[in-house]
Formats: sequence, C-alpha cells, structure tokens
Amino acid sequence: MVTKKIAVLPGDGIGPEVCRQAVKVLEAVAERFGHRFAFSSHLVGACAIDATGNPLPDETLAACRAADAVLFGAIGDPKYDNDPTAPVRPEQGLLRMRKELGLFANIRPVTAYTALLKHSPLKPERIEGTDLVIFRELTGGIYFGEKGRTADGTAYDHCTYSRPEIERIAHLAFQSAAGRRQHLTLVDKANVLETSRLWREVVRELAPQYPTVAVDYLFVDNAAMQIIMNPTQFDVLLTENMFGDIISDEASVIAGSMGLLPSASVGAAVAVFEPIHGSYPQAKGQGIANPLAAILSAAMLLDHLGLGTEAELVREAVDEAITNHILTPELNPSAPYTTEQVGSYVAFWI
Amino acid sequence: MVTKKIAVLPGDGIGPEVCRQAVKVLEAVAERFGHRFAFSSHLVGACAIDATGNPLPDETLAACRAADAVLFGAIGDPKYDNDPTAPVRPEQGLLRMRKELGLFANIRPVTAYTALLKHSPLKPERIEGTDLVIFRELTGGIYFGEKGRTADGTAYDHCTYSRPEIERIAHLAFQSAAGRRQHLTLVDKANVLETSRLWREVVRELAPQYPTVAVDYLFVDNAAMQIIMNPTQFDVLLTENMFGDIISDEASVIAGSMGLLPSASVGAAVAVFEPIHGSYPQAKGQGIANPLAAILSAAMLLDHLGLGTEAELVREAVDEAITNHILTPELNPSAPYTTEQVGSYVAFWI
Ligand SMILES: CC(C)[C@H](C(=O)O)[C@@H](O)C(=O)O
Ligand SMILES: CC(C)[C@H](C(=O)O)[C@@H](O)C(=O)O
Repeated sequence: MVTKKIAVLPGDGIGPEVCRQAVKVLEAVAERFGHRFAFSSHLVGACAIDATGNPLPDETLAACRAADAVLFGAIGDPKYDNDPTAPVRPEQGLLRMRKELGLFANIRPVTAYTALLKHSPLKPERIEGTDLVIFRELTGGIYFGEKGRTADGTAYDHCTYSRPEIERIAHLAFQSAAGRRQHLTLVDKANVLETSRLWREVVRELAPQYPTVAVDYLFVDNAAMQIIMNPTQFDVLLTENMFGDIISDEASVIAGSMGLLPSASVGAAVAVFEPIHGSYPQAKGQGIANPLAAILSAAMLLDHLGLGTEAELVREAVDEAITNHILTPELNPSAPYTTEQVGSYVAFWI
Repeated sequence: MVTKKIAVLPGDGIGPEVCRQAVKVLEAVAERFGHRFAFSSHLVGACAIDATGNPLPDETLAACRAADAVLFGAIGDPKYDNDPTAPVRPEQGLLRMRKELGLFANIRPVTAYTALLKHSPLKPERIEGTDLVIFRELTGGIYFGEKGRTADGTAYDHCTYSRPEIERIAHLAFQSAAGRRQHLTLVDKANVLETSRLWREVVRELAPQYPTVAVDYLFVDNAAMQIIMNPTQFDVLLTENMFGDIISDEASVIAGSMGLLPSASVGAAVAVFEPIHGSYPQAKGQGIANPLAAILSAAMLLDHLGLGTEAELVREAVDEAITNHILTPELNPSAPYTTEQVGSYVAFWI
C-alpha cells in the first residue's frame, strides 16, 4: 500500500476529457490495491494564458515539484496555432516545464496492436510485431539554444550538446535496451553535424559498459525511411531533441491512431506522463477523443512509481478494450464508444 | 536542334551503372530529335578521394561550371560511412559542389505509379494518386552554419537563414505551385525556431504575388505524419535544408522504391540532376540497380534545357517499362530484368 501525490495538468482541447478517464483508471487501481493517490489539478497551456497570462503559472510549477508524478493532458489552441510569432504561446509553457523540471528524456513506446493493424496506413505484414521505444533528448539542442535575429534581419538558432547532456540520456536508453531486445540504434546526422559527431562519440564510448547491447548508427534521413519500410528491425532508438520530435511523430503512424500512444518525460526529479496526441481542439467536448493514450500514460506513471503489477494490469485492461472493440470512432467507426465509456470499460477490468 | 554539354559525375557504388543507362537514353533522345549532347565524365566522391585525395577535384568543378547541365550518380562508400569523423569524406564533395555551384534548391517529385502500388509499404488506397513535389533549400541552414567544439568539449552547429536565401527558393516553389494544383505547404517548426519564423514571414509576404496559390503551414512533426497518413493532400512542399533531407527521404517510401525517384538541384548557374537513391554499394556491379531514377533525372535535365517534348517522351517510355514490368528485381522479383535491359528498353521506346 502506497500513498502518492499526482499533479494533473489537463491543459487544452481534449486534454481534460482524456485525463479524466486516466484518473478514473488510476482510482480503480488505488481501490483494488489499497493505495492512496491524491490528485490535484492545475492550469497549463492556452487555458492558463487565458486565466493568468502565463502558460505555466508558478502555482502549477510548484505543484509539479511537490508531486510524486505529473499526468499531463495536452496544450494548444487554434487561436495561437495560427500565429507562431505571438509573444505568449501555449507551447512556451510546455518547453518551460521541460526545462524547469529537468525532463531530459522523452520516452515513447510504439506498438502495433494486432487487432488494430487494419487502421494503420501501412500494410499489416510490414508492421505486425512492431515493438520499439524512442528515447528523445528533451531539454537541449536547437530547441533551447540561443536564437534571434541579427542587425541585417538574418535569423539564427544555435544547436549545442555537451557530453553530460548526451551521457545521461544514453545511459537510460542503454539500460532500456538491456532490459528489452539488446539493440540500440542511434539516429543522427554525423555526416554533416558536429553535435551528431559528439553523440556518436559518446554512445561509442559508453557501449562497452553494456556488453550485451548491440549498437548501430543510422543517419536521420535513412531512419525516416526505415521506420516506415521496416519498423520491426528496431528495439530502442536514441536521438536528439529535433530529430526525436520528427521521428517519434512519424513512428506514431504505425499504431494506426495517435490516440493509442503514451509517453513519459523523465529527468532528475519528478516525471511527466502524457499522451502524444495533442489538444485536437476540433474534437473537444464531443466524447470522441480516444482516452487510451492517456490511460497508457497512466500505466507508465505506475511503472515509474514502482507499481509494475498495477501498470501491467492497466495494460491488460487496455488490451481487453482493444480486443473487444470498445473503442472510440477513429478505431471503431461502425459501432463507436464514447471517451467516457472506453475509460469506464478499462476501469471496470481493473 | 540544340547542342549541349553534359558533365557526367557517376561517383561511387551503383552511380556509374545507372548513369550509363541515363546517358544511353539521352543519346536516343539526341538521335531522334537531331540534337547533339557532348558528354564528359568526371570524378566525385570516394573514387575521387582514392584517385586524388579530394572528393571534389578542381577539374570536376571546372567541368560542371563549363557544362549546360550535370548528371550526377551517387557518392559514398562503406569504408567512409562507418566513420563520419574521418577528416576527408565523400559527402564533403557533394556539399561543396552544392555550395560552389550555388545549387540552392533541391526539387524532388514523388509520384505513386499505379502499377507499383503493391510495392509500397503503404496501403494502396492511401497513396493512389499521390503527385507531390518537395522544394528543399540546399545551401543554407544548419548544414552550412558555423560548427565546432568549445573549450569544454561542447559541440555546436549554427543554423542561420537570411531573407534572400528564403525568398529565392520560395519564388521557385510558388511558381511551381502556380503551374500545378495551386497549393503550397510550408513545412517548418515556427513554434520553436526563429529561423522557421522567418521562413513563415517571408512566405506570407510573397503570397500576394501568387494570388491563385493557396498557402498553408505545417509543423515538421505533423508533416512527418501527414506525408504517410494522407500524401494526396499535398501539391508543393517547401522547406529548409535539414527538414527537407528528412521528409524527402521519408516521402520516397510512397513510391515503393527509391529506385524510381529523380531530383534536380538548381541555382543561379548550372543545374545538377541526380537519382535520390545513393550509392548502394552492396548492389554495385550486379546488374540489379534500378536505372529509372537516373533516367527520370535525365528527363528533368531535358526539361531544364527547355526540351519539354523530349522530357515527356522519356517519362512515357519509363511508364511503358513500368506498365510492362520491365523492372529490376526489387520491383519485379519473379521475372527481373537487369539494369542494362531496363535502360535499353526505355531507350528503345524513344
Ligand atoms: C508543441 C511542441 C513545442 C512540442 C515539441 O516540438 O517538442 C511537441 O511537438 C511535442 O513533441 O511535444
Ligand atoms: C550525403 C548527405 C550529406 C546528403 C544530405 O544530407 O544532404 C544526402 O542525404 C542527400 O539528401 O543528398
């Protein structure tokens, strides 16, 4: 029996409705195992700008710091999307949260569920059996480098990586591979970029510490092809921030729906668990948002809290929902269930 | 009747064998139309390093400058690929050629051939009808910015874009869209990068000059998904160097084989035409390399020389080969033709 504080940051769009289902499932877990989860809800993103002028209010950041884990919904609203040059934007809240909480590793598992192969744009025989995980560096690189304009109007963004920034996430990726299929692929552009050459050097240096793990190296352009051509060749993929942004969203097509994919962002202190699908504002409030990505993110949260049995149970319950077609419209157009019904079904199986 | 000097840079791996077929087809065109094409062959890449120590010898560069067009094969050899930190590497020749010849725009059409849909990893109904072209900026951005290591071993790569660098390729992309389906999509990461914000500003400013062209904007992570989920939505895609490297290789999976995809790199002076497939050293000398990408690159070369009728005829001959399954093993495993046979078949149809 454990007691844990979970900060919930529902955010914008469909964030609140999918978080509600994930919380429901976590409550079912608590009840079944006699744990106590204390949930508190906090503003982030466009709704935080509207309420406070700040996409990441101090109160929210303090609550995250005080929590044992953070469940995050999604941020973003069309009124900001159309103007990426606006001075205050929802994604600044997300980027600042990553930096302030030191969330240097974003971890995204991608699995092809057999029952859902027909929903993928890829041919089933190409993707069946896919089970990979992407480790994306999240607090460095071109996202957080110096940026601006020179006197003559030239724009610049600086990409930098230090050895320790690479080492800490590389260790996580090696450890993950060592517990999985012993295969790590570094995705870089070492034929062009100096930062990529440093990534390669560091990974090569660390490799002997993980003698069972086979390491290979793939240029990012080739990786963008291989992920679609032959995703089952991959076990653990490791890459820097910008490349990770691109290839992890690309890899999500394998699953057939973004509504299935969870993520964890971890670092030195508290970790954040988040469905990858974003705020999807067009779907807000209609009961059509798929809560499974949020629920699977809650499973990763349980794993992170050391509650592996509980996490496994949540994943099994999600498998039940998938196998029995208790799914939202994008995966079950002929007999769809609502966000709420899918969440309740999963909670019922706990 | 025209007279043109064509510099051929076959390069490494399968480069020479596919260039040979493209030259054969160009010779058939010359004969049929009474043109005179004077071909000359020059070293580039690993073979140039082996022969001269330099991946782009001065003689080669001078020959390109003196030519009306350049036909390029591929560069790269495993002995260099495995060590991207080696001081002299084949791709330096390619990057220097782009810079020296001012090849600021790389143009890559991607078409889904109906007869080949079964070879794509994507479901036929998703890709049927795809007809898009990617304009990738080729001489700026993080590829050519300052790079190095600081005293404490931190690596850096600087990405910069000036207004004129964006304007010149944006005009080309707008013009292309105006002659196609009137739709331009800028792919950027304007929610994070200052350079992307400048791209957006410039494209927005130029748009009124092309009133028939509808412009939209897509973040690169979303683009990486959309290209696989729904490629028929695109007409002309415009993007910066690094994003273009990734999404153009990614988009190549739509065609079912990289062996089908041509490219043109254009700038202020001479233009370079190149299959996108790379040197594929494992296939070298076996007669299994697909020459169609090189042949379609030759068609783009003819277009560029103002020989539109001739270019169209080459494309029709390629369609004949595809429709009649006169194809190399990757597209015709049960009754394959050799590189040479496919080239001769296309030349025969001219
Ligand atoms: C919203 C945006 C800044 C963010 C990113 O690029 O990291 C998003 O795409 C993500 O992947 O979480
Ligand atoms: C070889 C490499 C430097 C090159 C690039 O990244 O531009 C290649 O991938 C390409 O796309 O032509």
